[in-house]
Amino acid sequence: MKSKENRVDLKGVLAAVLTPMDEDLNPDHRAFAAHCHRLLEAGCHGLSVFGTTGEANSLSVDERLAALEALVESGVPPEKLLPGTGSCALTDTVRLSRAALEAGTAGALVLPPFYYKGVGDDGLFRFFAEVVERVGDDRLRLYLYHIPQMTGVDLGLSLISRLIDAYPGVVVGTKDSSSDRKRIMTLCREFPDFSVLAGTETLLLETLGSGGEGCISATVNVTSRLARRVHDAHAAGKDDEAEALQERLTQLRASIEAYPVIPALKQLMARLTGDKQWRNIRPPLSSLDEKRTQGLLSSVHLADLL
Amino acid sequence: MKSKENRVDLKGVLAAVLTPMDEDLNPDHRAFAAHCHRLLEAGCHGLSVFGTTGEANSLSVDERLAALEALVESGVPPEKLLPGTGSCALTDTVRLSRAALEAGTAGALVLPPFYYKGVGDDGLFRFFAEVVERVGDDRLRLYLYHIPQMTGVDLGLSLISRLIDAYPGVVVGTKDSSSDRKRIMTLCREFPDFSVLAGTETLLLETLGSGGEGCISATVNVTSRLARRVHDAHAAGKDDEAEALQERLTQLRASIEAYPVIPALKQLMARLTGDKQWRNIRPPLSSLDEKRTQGLLSSVHLADLL
Repeated sequence: MKSKENRVDLKGVLAAVLTPMDEDLNPDHRAFAAHCHRLLEAGCHGLSVFGTTGEANSLSVDERLAALEALVESGVPPEKLLPGTGSCALTDTVRLSRAALEAGTAGALVLPPFYYKGVGDDGLFRFFAEVVERVGDDRLRLYLYHIPQMTGVDLGLSLISRLIDAYPGVVVGTKDSSSDRKRIMTLCREFPDFSVLAGTETLLLETLGSGGEGCISATVNVTSRLARRVHDAHAAGKDDEAEALQERLTQLRASIEAYPVIPALKQLMARLTGDKQWRNIRPPLSSLDEKRTQGLLSSVHLADLL
Repeated sequence: MKSKENRVDLKGVLAAVLTPMDEDLNPDHRAFAAHCHRLLEAGCHGLSVFGTTGEANSLSVDERLAALEALVESGVPPEKLLPGTGSCALTDTVRLSRAALEAGTAGALVLPPFYYKGVGDDGLFRFFAEVVERVGDDRLRLYLYHIPQMTGVDLGLSLISRLIDAYPGVVVGTKDSSSDRKRIMTLCREFPDFSVLAGTETLLLETLGSGGEGCISATVNVTSRLARRVHDAHAAGKDDEAEALQERLTQLRASIEAYPVIPALKQLMARLTGDKQWRNIRPPLSSLDEKRTQGLLSSVHLADLL
């Protein structure tokens, strides 16, 4: 096992980046790059593109690859990227993970295969093992993406342990979007050499305080600055300030989370940028309707965002 | 609305065809074609390739397209094929559905997008509507694939009704793998101009008797002859014979269904053909272990199969 000091460098506040789309619902590479640059300037340590928030599983593999290539070409430092490379199909996950590696990203955030249910740990282990073996490059840094409310698949702690043991230095971390506080703190405690990133900034301070690396969150698309202040206050040992800021951050997140999060964030981006195109969203997701949009806008102050 | 007489021609006993794979877990086109020809000879009216049983969502889009092309080239009549074209991504479903249409298949069996959960009927409607509009060809015959135990998505009757009304002659039927007898019979009754195919041959006779079209089933990979006899006895008005045969068919299905169905069927195919390669299966599914294989083989008579 690696020592704590040798762990990968991806830590702090990461946005689960939205994917802006044009009128035909194709990813808008220019707006995507602009948003990524904006998030880094606002204080994000890193960017997890092509996750749930990025509607990645509503895009084809080719669309994901083209958007990643355009992003790196736009000057976003690849080492700040943690692209989602998960899919149901082994061959797709391998292709996406290899492309992430070749682009020089910090790692690949990999979903369990999510079509079949109840397949058991052996089948899941074999899937991740095949991904690692087929990518066949020990520079791969694989993060397990746990989001059972979407996948219907549980990544249990014994499976995680088995994967870490089988591929030390390659299976290096997890994004845990379960919102299960106890599970996340258990991961921090039981796998000290494993990077734990909470799927919500509500748990940012607690995760950092428990030895985790930080958070990767949808709402960080608009809460980056405040989330970064929580992180920095914690890093400076200013515990009271960190807690007060965390409380504000938690409230801000809650006011957005009261609505379907991805459509709500796209509406907020439309307001923040003045670009209505931001509201475009691929089915099966739907734009926020007018009534809900008004409710959302009355409960958050745009000046607090980004 | 079309009259009953104008309905599409796909009816009777359809196998949800297994996908044989080589040692590298790539689809074996030659074995696949051989199996499809065998099933047609055994009495299947049609073949639903690339569904759940065919591990289609464990294959990339390119792998599915290449296998379909090879199958048609092998001489399988495309009008007997109902390929699954479902995926999470709109663009993938459109590409697969268009390819199915261009290959001259009987239709396209389309899953709802299954990554996001709880998206509501509007989002699901918009997904299917976009598929129809983007394929943009009124020769498209779209079958809704309802399998909530895998997708976590419910295709409710009001959504189905809305889709039939919006796209008459295009949204023409459903494969219902819910195993919900009441729902399937309700579909037969409430949508008389809509093709209803039960996802299990256990409900074959009852579905036919209720005005449905038949079944598309995993276990038909090995129960084709018997299932066809049930169908033919029903068609000939030999009700007692049909019921006796249905009882045998139901028992045969139950003896296989006691095991994980896809691995069990692949084991049975390995025994029936003498080709061990049939046991290969993509993760996250796993081969049946030795103990379960023995149990399976002791409960079915190979001579009753195919």
